[in-house]
Amino acid sequence: MQTIKVNRARLAEAMKRISEVGATAKGGVHRLALDDKDKEARDLLRAWCADAGYPVRVDRIGNMFARRPGRIAGEKPVLIGSHLDSQPRAGRFDGPVGVIAALEVMRTLDENGITTDRPIDLVNWTNEEGARFQPPLMASGVFAGEFDLEETLKRQDKQGVSIGAELQRTGYAGLEPVGFPVSSYIELHIEQGVVLEQANKTIGVVSGFVGIRDTRVSVIGESVHAGPLPMRLRKDALVGAAKMVVAAQEIGFAHAPDARVTVGRLSVPSDSHSIVPGKVDLVLDVRHPDATRLDALQAELEARFRGIAAEQGLTVEFETQWYYAPVAFDHGMRQQIRAASDAYGYTHLDLPSRAGHDALNMAKVAPTSMIFIPCLKGISHNEAEFATDQDIAAGADVLLAATLAAAAR
Amino acid sequence: MQTIKVNRARLAEAMKRISEVGATAKGGVHRLALDDKDKEARDLLRAWCADAGYPVRVDRIGNMFARRPGRIAGEKPVLIGSHLDSQPRAGRFDGPVGVIAALEVMRTLDENGITTDRPIDLVNWTNEEGARFQPPLMASGVFAGEFDLEETLKRQDKQGVSIGAELQRTGYAGLEPVGFPVSSYIELHIEQGVVLEQANKTIGVVSGFVGIRDTRVSVIGESVHAGPLPMRLRKDALVGAAKMVVAAQEIGFAHAPDARVTVGRLSVPSDSHSIVPGKVDLVLDVRHPDATRLDALQAELEARFRGIAAEQGLTVEFETQWYYAPVAFDHGMRQQIRAASDAYGYTHLDLPSRAGHDALNMAKVAPTSMIFIPCLKGISHNEAEFATDQDIAAGADVLLAATLAAAAR
Repeated sequence: MQTIKVNRARLAEAMKRISEVGATAKGGVHRLALDDKDKEARDLLRAWCADAGYPVRVDRIGNMFARRPGRIAGEKPVLIGSHLDSQPRAGRFDGPVGVIAALEVMRTLDENGITTDRPIDLVNWTNEEGARFQPPLMASGVFAGEFDLEETLKRQDKQGVSIGAELQRTGYAGLEPVGFPVSSYIELHIEQGVVLEQANKTIGVVSGFVGIRDTRVSVIGESVHAGPLPMRLRKDALVGAAKMVVAAQEIGFAHAPDARVTVGRLSVPSDSHSIVPGKVDLVLDVRHPDATRLDALQAELEARFRGIAAEQGLTVEFETQWYYAPVAFDHGMRQQIRAASDAYGYTHLDLPSRAGHDALNMAKVAPTSMIFIPCLKGISHNEAEFATDQDIAAGADVLLAATLAAAAR
Repeated sequence: MQTIKVNRARLAEAMKRISEVGATAKGGVHRLALDDKDKEARDLLRAWCADAGYPVRVDRIGNMFARRPGRIAGEKPVLIGSHLDSQPRAGRFDGPVGVIAALEVMRTLDENGITTDRPIDLVNWTNEEGARFQPPLMASGVFAGEFDLEETLKRQDKQGVSIGAELQRTGYAGLEPVGFPVSSYIELHIEQGVVLEQANKTIGVVSGFVGIRDTRVSVIGESVHAGPLPMRLRKDALVGAAKMVVAAQEIGFAHAPDARVTVGRLSVPSDSHSIVPGKVDLVLDVRHPDATRLDALQAELEARFRGIAAEQGLTVEFETQWYYAPVAFDHGMRQQIRAASDAYGYTHLDLPSRAGHDALNMAKVAPTSMIFIPCLKGISHNEAEFATDQDIAAGADVLLAATLAAAAR
C-alpha cells in the first residue's frame, strides 16, 4: 500500500484560508448555502482547482467538480470531497476538511507524478446542511436521484428566495446535467462525536449511517390573553410542547447508548408576552442504527406526545419531514481504510455515523465509504468546533491512500 | 342620575364597520400598531369624528383626540376611549369597544342636546398592544410621562422600522405636544376573563390593576450536533427552558386563584433540526394583585429556574423588561359606575383587571376608572373573541352616565 504523505503546511494553510471566509468572532464560520460567503468560498475553491490545472465544472444544482484525469479511457471516476456550506454561526471544520483534503490529495499526486487508472473527481456539494434551504443533503440527493431537480430548484428559504434564484445570483447555476456514473465515493469528515476522542484513536472507519427520521409536530391549544382567564382554564400549547421536549429527552435517555432524540426547532407563532400560546410548531429528530428500533422509538415518542396532549386538553399532529434508513458501507472500501491507517501507523476503530452526510445519498448509487477524524469534545455545529492540523493531515493521508486504492482498476 | 341610552343600531353598525378593517378569515382582526390596517381604522375614526363635528387632533406620538366642548371655560376635559390596534390575528373587540362607545356617547349627547360643564375628549391611544413595537401601553405612557417621547419615537419593530417613520408614513405624526391636564379618564373594555360570565353579571366595576412583571430569560447551554454526541453529554438549552415552562405553570397553579404565570414568547436562535440548542430566549410574564406576593412569586420562579439550570448544566440570566405595580382606581369614580349600573338596571360586580390597559398609565396622572363587559368564555387575543351587541350597548350606557357624572363640576 502507498504511504505517500500529504503536504502538512499547504493543507493547514488552505484550511486557514477557507476558514476566513464568513469567519465569526468566536472562531467559527457563518456560511449558509448560496449566501455571499458561500459564494466567496466557492470562488476560492474554483481558483485553487484552476491553479492546480483542474478547471471546475458546475452542474445545474451548483455542485462543483474538478477532475484529475486517469490513465484508462472510459473509466468512471473516484469521487472525493464534502461540502463548504455551514450551519448558522457554526464550526469551520464540518465539511471543509473533506473538500480541502481532497484538493490536497490531488496536489500531492501531482507532485509525486502519480497517474491513476481511474480519474479522480473532487466534489463540493451544494447545501449539505439544510440550514437555509430544506432538506439537508440536498444536492447530493439530486445527484443520486433521490430528489427531483426542477422541484429542488424551486425550494425557498424563509425569505421566499429560491435555490434557483440564488444559483443564478452567485454564478453557480451550471449547465451540466446533475448526476454521472462514479466508480466509488470517499468522504473525509470530523466525527462530531466523542468516540474517537474517548478511545484515543486517530482514524474512524465508518461502518455506515444510523437511520434518521425528522417529524414536524404541531401542538394546538387555544390562544387567550395571559391575564384574565384563570390558569386552570388555559389550553397552553407551549406548556404541552415543553412537556413533550422533556419527554423526548427522557425517552432518548431510556434508549441509550444508541438513540439520539432532539428537538432543535421550536417556534411560537403568536410570539407575544400577553398571549397564552394557542399553537407551537416543533421538529423532532430521531436517530438509531437499527431500522426496527428506530420505528419503535418513533412510535413510543408519538404515543407519549399524544398522551401529553390529551392530558393538557391539546391536540397534536405529526408530519414526517424526511426519513433516511440506516445504511451499511461497502466492506471492501472499509477494509482499504483500515489497511491504509495501519500502513501509516495511525490508530483506528470502526463506528457508525450518527450525523447525515452526502455519503448517505452516494451510498445508493456507488460503493461508498467515510473516514472520520476526532474533534474536540465532540462539539460541532458550534463555533467552538475544533480539530488539530495533525489529525486533519492524518485523515488526508488515509484519504489519499484509499483514493489510490479505489482508483486502481 | 341620567339614564339616557345610546343608539343600539348605530353603535352596532360602527362596531361592524371598524371590524371590517384588517378582518381575518376567522372573524378577528390583524391590525398591528401603525400598519396599513391600523392607518385605515384611524382614518375611519377621524372621518366619523369630523362628521359628528369634532375635528381630530393628533399628538407627536400619534394619539388621536376629538373634543366635545364643555360649558365652563378653562375646565379640564374628561378623557374617554381606548385603542384600535390589535394583537396579531386577534379579536375585534379588545380596544375598539372603548373607542367606538366613546364616539357613540358623544353622538348621543348631541342628539339629546346635552352640554356638559367640562369638555369631553375621545381618545384613540397609539400602540396599546405592544405586539409590533415594545413596550405595550406605549403612547399613554408617553402621555403620562412614563416614557420619553424622543426615545419612544426611535423604537423599532423586528424589521428595524421605527415608530417615528411609521407615524410619518401613515400621516399620524401629529404636531401637538404629548400630554395635557385631564380631569378624569374612563375606559370601557371587554373583561378578557370569565369572572362576569361565570357570575352572570353585565357590568364589571374595575377596582384597579394587578401588578405585571415581564422578565427576559436567557437559557445558555452548548450547541452541538444532534447526532454523534451521547445524549447524556448534552447541555440542551431547550430541554432546560422546557422544564422552566412546565415549572412556571406548576408554580402559577400553586398560587391560584390570584397568580397568572405565562411564557408567551420562546425562541431557539440556532433553529436547526440537527443542532442541540445552545441558547433559548423566553419572556416570563407574572401577574398578581398584591405587590409583595408578586415579588415573592417572581423570586420563587427565578429560584426554581436557577435550580433547573444547575441540574442541567446550563446557565440562566434574567433581565426585567417592565414592571407595573398594582394600581387601585379612584373610589368616587367606581361608585359612579356602580350607581350608573343600578340606575339602568344592569347587574354588576367589582373585579380587578388582570390585563394591562392604557388606564394603568392614566391612573398616574388623573382619577381613573374602567368599565368591563363580559366576553365569551374569557377568550381574548384570539380571533374567536366575542362580546354581544347587547353587552356592548350596556357598557356604552354606563360609560355615558359615568362620563356625565365626571363632566359635571
